[in-house]
Amino acid sequence: MLMTDLIAAKRDGRELSTEEIGFFVTGFTSGQIPDYQMSAMCMAILFRGMTDREILDLTLAMERSGDILDLSEIKGIKADKHSTGGVGDKTTLVLCPMIAALGVKFAKMSGRGLGHTGGTIDKLESFPGFSTAISERQFIDDVNRIGIAIAGQTANLVPADKKMYALRDVTGTVPSIPLIVSSIMSKKLASGADIIVLDVKCGEGSFMKTKNDAKELASQLVRVGKLAGKKVTAVITDMDEPLGFAVGNALEVKEAIAALNGAECGELTNLCLTLGSYILLDAGLAVSEMKARAMLRGTIEDGSALKKLAELVEAQGGDPSAVYDTSLLPDAPVKLEVLSNCQGYVKHIAAEDVGLVSMHLGGGRVTKESVIDLSVGVVLNKKVGNHVDAGEVIGTVHAATEEAASKAADELRDCYTISENKVRKKAFIKGIVR
Amino acid sequence: MLMTDLIAAKRDGRELSTEEIGFFVTGFTSGQIPDYQMSAMCMAILFRGMTDREILDLTLAMERSGDILDLSEIKGIKADKHSTGGVGDKTTLVLCPMIAALGVKFAKMSGRGLGHTGGTIDKLESFPGFSTAISERQFIDDVNRIGIAIAGQTANLVPADKKMYALRDVTGTVPSIPLIVSSIMSKKLASGADIIVLDVKCGEGSFMKTKNDAKELASQLVRVGKLAGKKVTAVITDMDEPLGFAVGNALEVKEAIAALNGAECGELTNLCLTLGSYILLDAGLAVSEMKARAMLRGTIEDGSALKKLAELVEAQGGDPSAVYDTSLLPDAPVKLEVLSNCQGYVKHIAAEDVGLVSMHLGGGRVTKESVIDLSVGVVLNKKVGNHVDAGEVIGTVHAATEEAASKAADELRDCYTISENKVRKKAFIKGIVR
Repeated sequence: MLMTDLIAAKRDGRELSTEEIGFFVTGFTSGQIPDYQMSAMCMAILFRGMTDREILDLTLAMERSGDILDLSEIKGIKADKHSTGGVGDKTTLVLCPMIAALGVKFAKMSGRGLGHTGGTIDKLESFPGFSTAISERQFIDDVNRIGIAIAGQTANLVPADKKMYALRDVTGTVPSIPLIVSSIMSKKLASGADIIVLDVKCGEGSFMKTKNDAKELASQLVRVGKLAGKKVTAVITDMDEPLGFAVGNALEVKEAIAALNGAECGELTNLCLTLGSYILLDAGLAVSEMKARAMLRGTIEDGSALKKLAELVEAQGGDPSAVYDTSLLPDAPVKLEVLSNCQGYVKHIAAEDVGLVSMHLGGGRVTKESVIDLSVGVVLNKKVGNHVDAGEVIGTVHAATEEAASKAADELRDCYTISENKVRKKAFIKGIVR
Repeated sequence: MLMTDLIAAKRDGRELSTEEIGFFVTGFTSGQIPDYQMSAMCMAILFRGMTDREILDLTLAMERSGDILDLSEIKGIKADKHSTGGVGDKTTLVLCPMIAALGVKFAKMSGRGLGHTGGTIDKLESFPGFSTAISERQFIDDVNRIGIAIAGQTANLVPADKKMYALRDVTGTVPSIPLIVSSIMSKKLASGADIIVLDVKCGEGSFMKTKNDAKELASQLVRVGKLAGKKVTAVITDMDEPLGFAVGNALEVKEAIAALNGAECGELTNLCLTLGSYILLDAGLAVSEMKARAMLRGTIEDGSALKKLAELVEAQGGDPSAVYDTSLLPDAPVKLEVLSNCQGYVKHIAAEDVGLVSMHLGGGRVTKESVIDLSVGVVLNKKVGNHVDAGEVIGTVHAATEEAASKAADELRDCYTISENKVRKKAFIKGIVR
């Protein structure tokens, strides 16, 4: 079998066989197939697409390219959650404790962030002492004991995806649905969950600019997940503004804790209730979405979700008292209120740009080696649809220095589009595919 | 400027600017842009195509990637000829002497062959002592003195094409008209000719399988050549069988000499008269195609074309007497007649496969380092449309050993498709674009 022939076949619109797909994934991972052939193949896939069967085969071949977690020792139903990436996305920190409090296991592999803000792991490290570098043994034991564990990705989980993603990133081959689906689903499958919920972002700052594109990606993710024998639900959500109010590592942890304390956190609570209810339905723990949402709200009202978060923090070496006293979390020395220049209604908040404000403050990684300042970021006061007076506070910048704060304040102001006319907020949840 | 952005732009169907095209050609040639980005770009170009302006810019950027021949010292009009590659193609050996005998200059850069048979340089080396490794000084002086010189390509002529072609060959990106056109025309432009004739092959064994594809390629070649200020004609020819009767280096030289002696060599003479007549028209030396053909025939009848070939051979260190006594050319020790198994009409001769027979006999290069046996090859007796009796000779194999001859005989027989019904020969020249 020659890679050149396989590229030509895909280029000419032929369906690749299971063996052919396995051949190039294995060859590329081992280094026998060079980058320049793989990038041509990715571009051919981008133009020609793939059938469901091909995407499933690509996903499975990638899953098998490295280690696969053996979670057979974990008793009960295991759930997992994935987001295609949003600014201010602290969903995992709210959803996982709620679900675990209701008896569904959450054995989650998470990544560090590269870009605007940190990933879930970075955020969790806001708890003094918290570590995601735990052994497989502890990971499994923790999940069995308290129902939840969050570990950093092991080096050899889906190496094909790591290598392919790095290549796609510099060869214009990121926005291909078959490649996005196999990248996401290979990792989800390798992580061994039974139930998978997906948050597919839609809008300017995400892969999928239009609702139709997002719907296509969501449908494809669900189809492939089901073909692989998983229960999968995708929720399509709006990314025309950051999720919730806080953007920045410790700030997002504080917002997640507030949400678990019952505070109204914009669309964050809504999203967690929606994703959580499909997990409960698929786990057979609820008979309707309404009942499921009530059960989830119950974990907030009776404090069991917050308690679960404290258990998680303690199990992984962190100080659980910070869950109940957020003044123990990192706090930036400078806080600067950002005032609006004009009066009107918030029409749009460029989520991507708000992420960049946080990154410029030191809250995100420019390179893999960057050290993140967990304390910095921004907290928005005004969101889309809100009325703003000239001189009113639209948000607060949390910074390391006065200078950084003042620069960030100007940047944050530019993220807002204010309209003279009343703005009707668009639906946050644009669709459900399952 | 980032290569990733340029790939994404072409992927999304945007026209690239002159600067953008120059950026990636220069960067790729110097090694700053890696192969994996260039192959993704080639695949994006293959799917999205290029405008005339983009193809011209690509061609010019490639032309300028290395040395450009300065032929300003050559007096008179300079012509050049290119073929997209055929089996048994000895056109240059017949056409150039005829044209030079009529006063048009032929300063030709030629390549060695990789594949079935040698290139023009290999064929010319059948003349004992002949060398194409001549200095630029001698090249120019020879053209001024006798009107013709054939040199091996200098290392640094269009290096962008050498590097791009090697990459395209292994990434499924050969059959893209913009890439084929810029590859051919960048070399032709760098060689400094005023008049260019192109032989675009059409059929099974060539890039362009259908007449429409060949016509599109021919039109694009001519458009870009004209935009670059050249006089260009493309002749679309059939490749459903080898050109002429001989396939193999010295065997093709002998056939070329026969043609210059006035022998009827199938479509070979026809093709040379056609290509030559457009050169004469563009040079202003003839007022009609008919007159031009008569002038060309005149160079055969009065022996001036053959004399010109002898002058060329002598000027480049070869023995000119071999032009008049072909027994001085390499001759294979074993000659084996190949007999037909069946009776009927020759319907098709797989040109590509006949080329492979010659290569298996040692007449072609497998790698750049292969040493070619100039004496071996095949001479066909029967061509498409001919009647064959069972047991009649369809061709002769010229080999180094009895064993190789016998193996080649079986292979050659398999190249023939014999039909019971009478076969009507298709038109050899399928179209002219100028």
